[in-house]
Amino acid sequence: MNYVATFARFAEHLNNLCADLDKAVAYAAEKKFDPAVLLNARLAPDQFNLMRQIQVACDNAKNGAGRLADRTVPAHADNEATVAELQTRLKAVVELLGSFDEAAFAGADERVIALPYWGGRYMTGADYLAHYLVPNFYFHVTTAYSILRHNGVSLGKLDYLGRLPLRLPATQG
Amino acid sequence: MNYVATFARFAEHLNNLCADLDKAVAYAAEKKFDPAVLLNARLAPDQFNLMRQIQVACDNAKNGAGRLADRTVPAHADNEATVAELQTRLKAVVELLGSFDEAAFAGADERVIALPYWGGRYMTGADYLAHYLVPNFYFHVTTAYSILRHNGVSLGKLDYLGRLPLRLPATQG
Repeated sequence: MNYVATFARFAEHLNNLCADLDKAVAYAAEKKFDPAVLLNARLAPDQFNLMRQIQVACDNAKNGAGRLADRTVPAHADNEATVAELQTRLKAVVELLGSFDEAAFAGADERVIALPYWGGRYMTGADYLAHYLVPNFYFHVTTAYSILRHNGVSLGKLDYLGRLPLRLPATQG
Repeated sequence: MNYVATFARFAEHLNNLCADLDKAVAYAAEKKFDPAVLLNARLAPDQFNLMRQIQVACDNAKNGAGRLADRTVPAHADNEATVAELQTRLKAVVELLGSFDEAAFAGADERVIALPYWGGRYMTGADYLAHYLVPNFYFHVTTAYSILRHNGVSLGKLDYLGRLPLRLPATQG
């Protein structure tokens, strides 16, 4: 598993969320409602709201990179109140992710990762990435996107996927 | 990127969806409604319903493995009408995924993957997996889960994540 490439994907998805939030703000302006309504929206009463889904996606990426590289990462106080503040956090995490290079993840496959709610048990870094971090990150990013779609923001699949690295076939002759 | 490990994760998530559908059927029985109502539920009027989200998750996994291994995979007619039929499809894809070993993916990183709606452009196998297949697969699995949550089925995060490979620390002494 290539850690740098994985966190580069995460950074892209956080950037995509940032752009989706711009569309959400435009939609709120058009419909004349406070965008904070969307930040408080959720798909089920016992699921996180949009604000928390995005905060958690940020923390998945930030803390995941920090744990796998055994490096302390800056804390965020979860005190964002506006879309703009949430976008500032998204951009801060994107920038942080760019500071981890291949060398930072040396030994990450075998690193012991023990989360406080795992009751003293642990996963290897490789298992943590594949079984926990990747599915969790995409869960929160997808749910954030779906909360916006559910509330009428005009988003399509490419807003989720972002720009794809498509290549032109080599010309013959 | 380890292809066999990635598809093993996909198989686990398809199995988790199978179990989530059992809970959906039990919920429908308790509330005395036809579980097909859930198969037709969706989070936005222009998004796929639950049935289609799960069919697409199956196809992401099945066709993804087939493309990366350059192997023809069996077609599914998208004619499921019941939860039981959808579970049969999920199990068929899980079984199929188990038939791809490390050797099947030899050369997959550099393989040319060209989907019909990419206008003649292509991605390398490695890019296809990281930029397209993984985020897409988790998108559809998460959305299926969220449609059930949104409609009151009692599911928690572990129903999404499945069984984690947690290990006990070595005892000292």
